[in-house]
Amino acid sequence: MTVKQLPLPELVAHCVRLGIPGIGLWREPVREYGTEGAAALVRDAGLTVTTLCRGGFFTADGWEQDNRAAIDEAVTLGTDTLVLVSGGLPAGSRDLPAARARIADAIAELAPYAGERGIRLAIEPLHPMYASDRCAVSTLDQALEIAEPFPPSQVGVTVDTYHLWWDDRAPAAVARAGAAGRIHSFQLADWTTPLPAGVLDGRAQLGTGAIDLAAWAALVEKAGYAGPVEVELFSDELWARDGVQVLEETLEAFLAV
Amino acid sequence: MTVKQLPLPELVAHCVRLGIPGIGLWREPVREYGTEGAAALVRDAGLTVTTLCRGGFFTADGWEQDNRAAIDEAVTLGTDTLVLVSGGLPAGSRDLPAARARIADAIAELAPYAGERGIRLAIEPLHPMYASDRCAVSTLDQALEIAEPFPPSQVGVTVDTYHLWWDDRAPAAVARAGAAGRIHSFQLADWTTPLPAGVLDGRAQLGTGAIDLAAWAALVEKAGYAGPVEVELFSDELWARDGVQVLEETLEAFLAV
Repeated sequence: MTVKQLPLPELVAHCVRLGIPGIGLWREPVREYGTEGAAALVRDAGLTVTTLCRGGFFTADGWEQDNRAAIDEAVTLGTDTLVLVSGGLPAGSRDLPAARARIADAIAELAPYAGERGIRLAIEPLHPMYASDRCAVSTLDQALEIAEPFPPSQVGVTVDTYHLWWDDRAPAAVARAGAAGRIHSFQLADWTTPLPAGVLDGRAQLGTGAIDLAAWAALVEKAGYAGPVEVELFSDELWARDGVQVLEETLEAFLAV
Repeated sequence: MTVKQLPLPELVAHCVRLGIPGIGLWREPVREYGTEGAAALVRDAGLTVTTLCRGGFFTADGWEQDNRAAIDEAVTLGTDTLVLVSGGLPAGSRDLPAARARIADAIAELAPYAGERGIRLAIEPLHPMYASDRCAVSTLDQALEIAEPFPPSQVGVTVDTYHLWWDDRAPAAVARAGAAGRIHSFQLADWTTPLPAGVLDGRAQLGTGAIDLAAWAALVEKAGYAGPVEVELFSDELWARDGVQVLEETLEAFLAV
């Protein structure tokens, strides 16, 4: 998503050239390219698919069919992790606890289906500014509470610095998630203000914002996480630029962090 | 602030006409009008000044002089409560815990000065989307933690639905704050999306957004709060309209909640 302006074959070629060993894919571009074809492209280049983004939106109609399809696509792509953005309030509702309960119920439905196929669901808490319209799961504690009834091989969490950096309870939750083997994805993005209208596409390049990313990396490592580290920058500014340049610059910023 | 387009004398006259018994004032319009004059205007109309907004910004230079001035202005206005928006990260810093410690130190400096003058400081946790640039105090639990070393007559909290509605720990914190007599201000605003650029001026009229405001009012009442309820809508949309109409509409929406 950081370089969504790059067609998949170009992205793969430049990752190989730059020594980037894996990529997190999003469903829409994968489907556009063809899921089988995308899987072969990445695999033949010797890259791994770190995660598939995203399942979720459990408070909307049709969630079950869509999420089973997402799990199947993850299998085809050869990744072991499906990231979940759980959905906000159902239309007309003001009941956040009910939305969270509905999310937990949906995940209970999906968890065995995912586990049987070798896919781990990674519940991603989103920043509280998305609580009404994208994700009623706002803290890592809430995500863990939903995950904990299931084996870690079925359900865990995504730790994304952009969403969690403000939360003084997040470090303890990271330690708890790590000890239980439930950190299934770790994503970096930096925080900057002013936020753009809609607050979706204003993430900052690593190292240019307010988040102590090195401290977050150390925290997650100390919690026992040894998996891939993804960089996920939704940014109108970066998307408007040459994708290869942005990819190279992001790699540099990543290594500097 | 909800009807900042109304000059102070008009605001006072229409509050009297509509039976609104008190108003929360902001320092800038008060200073423009003259603090003594504003105090007389409100007092002579039989209204109370519910709170003065705002002190704070403790992570910026000059905070001490400015906050002592704010306390003195609160005394002149005859209110007993100064709302504090505590400030974000100092320039160049990525250390949120350090910013929070600095805020706690500043409040320790101010609390006796305020208490001696009959002014209660009301720490307002702001939504986490403001953590970097406006207020590193993002939850009611954090605000209470800073308040608790001081007598409630010196330091308490502001409960604002717009900032706290997403937080599943807020209800317990409201109960704790109420039991300790530390709810010094209760403010209503509704949440709507998409948020505007800068995310400051997109609050929704009561009853038109995602927050269960009646549940919040019940929660705060159950916690023992019997003080004034303020409506604080920062809204480009409402500010662009006729202030008297907005005031009347807001009163209706308030009564409906």
